[in-house]
Amino acid sequence: MEQPQSSGIVTLTTDFGLVDHYAGVMRGVILSICPAATVVDLTHGVEPQQIEQGAFFLAQGYAAFPGGSVHVAVVDPAVGTKRRYLVAIAHGHYFVGPDNGVLSHVLAGANAKVLAVDVERILPPLESRTFHGRDVFAPLGARIAIGESISNWGERIADYVRLPSLEPEALGSGCWRGRVLSIDRFGNFVTSLRPELIKSFEAGFVLRIGQAEITRQVGAYDEVDDKKPFVITGSAGFLEISVRQGSAVDAIEAALGDAVELRDDSVS
Amino acid sequence: MEQPQSSGIVTLTTDFGLVDHYAGVMRGVILSICPAATVVDLTHGVEPQQIEQGAFFLAQGYAAFPGGSVHVAVVDPAVGTKRRYLVAIAHGHYFVGPDNGVLSHVLAGANAKVLAVDVERILPPLESRTFHGRDVFAPLGARIAIGESISNWGERIADYVRLPSLEPEALGSGCWRGRVLSIDRFGNFVTSLRPELIKSFEAGFVLRIGQAEITRQVGAYDEVDDKKPFVITGSAGFLEISVRQGSAVDAIEAALGDAVELRDDSVS
Amino acid sequence: MEQPQSSGIVTLTTDFGLVDHYAGVMRGVILSICPAATVVDLTHGVEPQQIEQGAFFLAQGYAAFPGGSVHVAVVDPAVGTKRRYLVAIAHGHYFVGPDNGVLSHVLAGANAKVLAVDVERILPPLESRTFHGRDVFAPLGARIAIGESISNWGERIADYVRLPSLEPEALGSGCWRGRVLSIDRFGNFVTSLRPELIKSFEAGFVLRIGQAEITRQVGAYDEVDDKKPFVITGSAGFLEISVRQGSAVDAIEAALGDAVELRDDSVS
Repeated sequence: MEQPQSSGIVTLTTDFGLVDHYAGVMRGVILSICPAATVVDLTHGVEPQQIEQGAFFLAQGYAAFPGGSVHVAVVDPAVGTKRRYLVAIAHGHYFVGPDNGVLSHVLAGANAKVLAVDVERILPPLESRTFHGRDVFAPLGARIAIGESISNWGERIADYVRLPSLEPEALGSGCWRGRVLSIDRFGNFVTSLRPELIKSFEAGFVLRIGQAEITRQVGAYDEVDDKKPFVITGSAGFLEISVRQGSAVDAIEAALGDAVELRDDSVS
Repeated sequence: MEQPQSSGIVTLTTDFGLVDHYAGVMRGVILSICPAATVVDLTHGVEPQQIEQGAFFLAQGYAAFPGGSVHVAVVDPAVGTKRRYLVAIAHGHYFVGPDNGVLSHVLAGANAKVLAVDVERILPPLESRTFHGRDVFAPLGARIAIGESISNWGERIADYVRLPSLEPEALGSGCWRGRVLSIDRFGNFVTSLRPELIKSFEAGFVLRIGQAEITRQVGAYDEVDDKKPFVITGSAGFLEISVRQGSAVDAIEAALGDAVELRDDSVS
Repeated sequence: MEQPQSSGIVTLTTDFGLVDHYAGVMRGVILSICPAATVVDLTHGVEPQQIEQGAFFLAQGYAAFPGGSVHVAVVDPAVGTKRRYLVAIAHGHYFVGPDNGVLSHVLAGANAKVLAVDVERILPPLESRTFHGRDVFAPLGARIAIGESISNWGERIADYVRLPSLEPEALGSGCWRGRVLSIDRFGNFVTSLRPELIKSFEAGFVLRIGQAEITRQVGAYDEVDDKKPFVITGSAGFLEISVRQGSAVDAIEAALGDAVELRDDSVS
């Protein structure tokens, strides 16, 4: 299998948080195997066991790193049970994680090579059934970073677990449904809807999230001088719902994964 | 323009927090441009859009790093609108950030060279109007770190935005006013007042913060054996209000930026 | 004194959190003294002034790093007063911290060499009485990382402060008492009890924590399909109390340090 040359960078995307020692232990395991690695946190702030949020962060973040980087993603509610361990090459990067969908956004449409790793053959006996970030995923990532060939690590597969597509669902009558992918530190709701939809509408739009209906779109936060929610194109290229110098999450009751509907106002 | 030699270190001071992928993306952008960089978080814990707190953290932290380090500060409520992008040399270090005051404490009295960067000429078209940490400030910092000359990046300016001075305001009758610069993890209020003021007083002092009046000063936390607030000289050389093995913020109602008054008790 | 060769890695374990600039400043101090160091956070999430939790994180984390790494631990309620400053060699690693027990779990039974560092002779005059992480422990750690000999830094001692042992206390009649060492991000209670105890029992077990009694033990989280607490062997080899895709800490009222009792159900 043709492999991109390792950049020496290993990124971590987990739901471990930064209070416990778990993230620190993963960093140590990687440096023990690959002392020259640059270990970088993409984030450890995924909500516990929120696989789709992890998939979103990974998809948003990996491309900022040089090709040949190794991205280890661990959001793994089924740790210790029989789910597969994946290593993939896509977009010139490496990805490592459990087969539960956390890699599926980066693999979608990428002509990806995906292996189900035969962990029992490749790794020493696992120390735990609760911390495969330490026992499986960090070691695999580090061994890729030192330039090891992965071709004999396991079977190539195509039936890896896929999350529901990020494409909006057409509800008919100029109405589309997406969902909340993340709620960020500034209280912005990041949705799976794209501004191109609004551009395609004849007239205005109505975006419904929770009990709120939003009809205002702006280009930059400072174009607004009130505290009412508006729609803006975020850094991910998705529509976000924001409040200027405030927090949309304080104004609107909605949660991770909730539906968001966008309607062409010219269609009745 | 004479430039200090790059140390290869790029520090980050932002209000992005560590839950989202934003800090991780900045690290990736820097490593993509300058693979040999050592990217270090000064902190991502600035309260959202609290420019003065960001300026305080930056001023407190930069000097711990070797000369020639590049300090990127992004607290940027006006992202996406027409405010200037600054690159500065001061104290033998580089500073990068928006022109909103976040750099002003480190530049104050520093014989600083400050450039307003012509971003449209120096950088490729920006991808977003909401994430200039990724699209502007990280790339500029990384290009300094690889040793690029900044002399033609823009006009040298002197009228950069300045925050109110940290110097205490004389209210007359032996009374001075400062403010709360930060409230730290231990619940300490870090003020802009310095212990030299108290030393200059004839008799004792009264420090007023919120509804509390404090008249006790100690040298180390363990000199106290009750749970009442006291004044101590913190690591920044400023007066802090603390509670032993407890939290001053639980005992006193006061917020970031609030006024703090220090009175010479011998003056009536 | 024979010293392991430095790995160039310096880890940090503190109660400083990641909101303030304190952790960032320690990173800078280390890089200023040892520019080639790899500075890694084990964690800054120790609860303020919870020495035992810091000792636990350090003991759980250090061995993930290569031998010759320097582990700096700062949980230091008595900062600024006369407690000793320790540097130790144990398990082929270096440890640096205050003499208050934070190093005692890693030193226990390790044939450790422990020095009480004569800081006044070895370091320049301290800048503060509140931030010895910056003024003492980071500099000592960095100087070890660059390969400095520590043999003349101070007296070798054996009477360093020890925390209560992690060994369970025998209460008689097949009953043992341990305690809560940590409560992690997933709401798991990490106890000081080990699964070998349960194995030694004739029949079942009852584990009491707070008001709850738990009698179910599983091998992996996904073996359970209800929301009732169970016992599982965690990554540290200790018994943990967990709830599947939920949080034991929401179901059971118990705090850091609280007693946990394990009873052999065949003994009446």
